[in-house]
Amino acid sequence: MRLKRKRLEINEYADGILSGDKIILSRAITLIESNLDTDIELSEKVLELILPHTGNSKRIGITGVPGVGKSTFIEALGILLADQGKQLAVLAVDPSSQRTGGSILGDKTRMEQLSHHPNAYIRPSATGNSLGGVANKTRETMLLCEAAGFNHILIETVGVGQSEIAVKGMVDFFLLLMLAGAGDELQGIKKGIMEMADAIAITKADHDNIQASKRAKAEYQNALHLFPLADSGWQPKVLTCSSVAKTGLDDILHLIETYYDHMEGKLDKLRTQQNISWMHESIGFMLKQNFYGNSEVKTDLPEIEQQVGAGMITPQAAARKLLNL
Amino acid sequence: MRLKRKRLEINEYADGILSGDKIILSRAITLIESNLDTDIELSEKVLELILPHTGNSKRIGITGVPGVGKSTFIEALGILLADQGKQLAVLAVDPSSQRTGGSILGDKTRMEQLSHHPNAYIRPSATGNSLGGVANKTRETMLLCEAAGFNHILIETVGVGQSEIAVKGMVDFFLLLMLAGAGDELQGIKKGIMEMADAIAITKADHDNIQASKRAKAEYQNALHLFPLADSGWQPKVLTCSSVAKTGLDDILHLIETYYDHMEGKLDKLRTQQNISWMHESIGFMLKQNFYGNSEVKTDLPEIEQQVGAGMITPQAAARKLLNL
Repeated sequence: MRLKRKRLEINEYADGILSGDKIILSRAITLIESNLDTDIELSEKVLELILPHTGNSKRIGITGVPGVGKSTFIEALGILLADQGKQLAVLAVDPSSQRTGGSILGDKTRMEQLSHHPNAYIRPSATGNSLGGVANKTRETMLLCEAAGFNHILIETVGVGQSEIAVKGMVDFFLLLMLAGAGDELQGIKKGIMEMADAIAITKADHDNIQASKRAKAEYQNALHLFPLADSGWQPKVLTCSSVAKTGLDDILHLIETYYDHMEGKLDKLRTQQNISWMHESIGFMLKQNFYGNSEVKTDLPEIEQQVGAGMITPQAAARKLLNL
Repeated sequence: MRLKRKRLEINEYADGILSGDKIILSRAITLIESNLDTDIELSEKVLELILPHTGNSKRIGITGVPGVGKSTFIEALGILLADQGKQLAVLAVDPSSQRTGGSILGDKTRMEQLSHHPNAYIRPSATGNSLGGVANKTRETMLLCEAAGFNHILIETVGVGQSEIAVKGMVDFFLLLMLAGAGDELQGIKKGIMEMADAIAITKADHDNIQASKRAKAEYQNALHLFPLADSGWQPKVLTCSSVAKTGLDDILHLIETYYDHMEGKLDKLRTQQNISWMHESIGFMLKQNFYGNSEVKTDLPEIEQQVGAGMITPQAAARKLLNL
């Protein structure tokens, strides 16, 4: 049970965050996750104060379909980083999650060792019924974590929908976890996600699975060579690893270092572009939120949607009709 | 020089289109391409009348970077179809085009033989400065062509940007043209486009290029097998062809037939989804058009964009600031 607490003063939040106080950090994140107008106003002021202290982290996105071993992987990689003295925050974007339902990261016990590590901070996904809202909250949470001194931010997402695009738009490096043996498991990955990856890690490359993982690695590496490069010129790599046998994790950390070396002088440009895109997406999101929140639109939408689906009215005319409400 | 003509009556447009009159069809398309409020109103009424007579065509999108031989390919494939007695309309989405500048399809002489074929109708891309606007016009033009009796619609796009996503959202089958010999030429293809393709055709597979094309075919076929399938379960295929030697074109037509066989019973669902998505995208587009067209937004946007890019204000706060104007 969570206690309803009084809000702090703006400066108390900012000072607490900047001094690395995890309790105040958590309370500030709760403020960001709130949808109350007064909280939104307060959180924007807090963000304004801490903003000059953000940006000093490696921002890493991690995705993969359920069953790929994401939590185990993040825990293993996270412990490795934390043991090296890195300050690590683990966040998640999962618009389907409910704090109380067993969502990704929702159940902290799944990363029990990492969650008790003094250098690590784990925060479950914000709740909310729209991806845009949830993703915005995660992005702002990332900024708070950076201001609190975390220099590695891992952002987890579920690999089955649009949230990957949102996460790709807030991280520097995007890692896709996959299983060897292609086939059905992979069909959960949505189109377009593989092409967004800066690296693919074939997980569970242990025991009987080592040979299959090596083959998968070679196949994906060949495939990725055929696909267009990112603007930065980075060629995505494929690695294998085992979170249980603790193999291949060092290689992944090394690859991430290589990536940041490659991005030397290019990272600012990437982040500037991300910020500007994010603003325009936020505008689009807010405009739609206002529009679809309108009670007349809500009433008329189902019928108009049906007519459009049945080809009785053009999508364009239907859109205009709804906008004229 | 185009002559300024008087508008026809709604029924004259509709009757002319339904009787397959190409001159009236062209005038109706001009009406759709107009941005005058009175024309928009008139064109929506025409669309309403012809809508029950649409949907009876194979809707095929074709993309590929400049240099891949798109025009030559479309002309060769188009002649093959038209000679078989198919009624063929060729349209284009190219938001960068100006009717007078040498855009794709803008210069009809590039498809001279096809443009004189009695079974073919070629219409250059609508002009406009926003992709959403241009794509909407192309989509509605497609409906007019269907009502006019064209049973094959080829929609060309340029392979270097967002217009592919718009075209993917209005066609049944999406064909990506590529060259053998990967490397630099391919870098023009944007990320995500390859995964949208229902088929890839390696063009210019003739003379010295035959072996390289065969290798490219095998490589891409292997790569595509690793990638997630579309909801329909269709496995994208790779073929080779030469528009000059006229080889492989029959295979492509045969593949398209196979695709439609595969989509038997699934095509309606795909088109219903496309219609509904298109409506929501149109809503988003119109909302943004209104917003970014606002004079205060126009004045303040550049400075706010700069502040966001420099990390002085969060994208979220900037969006809210602009929306409050």
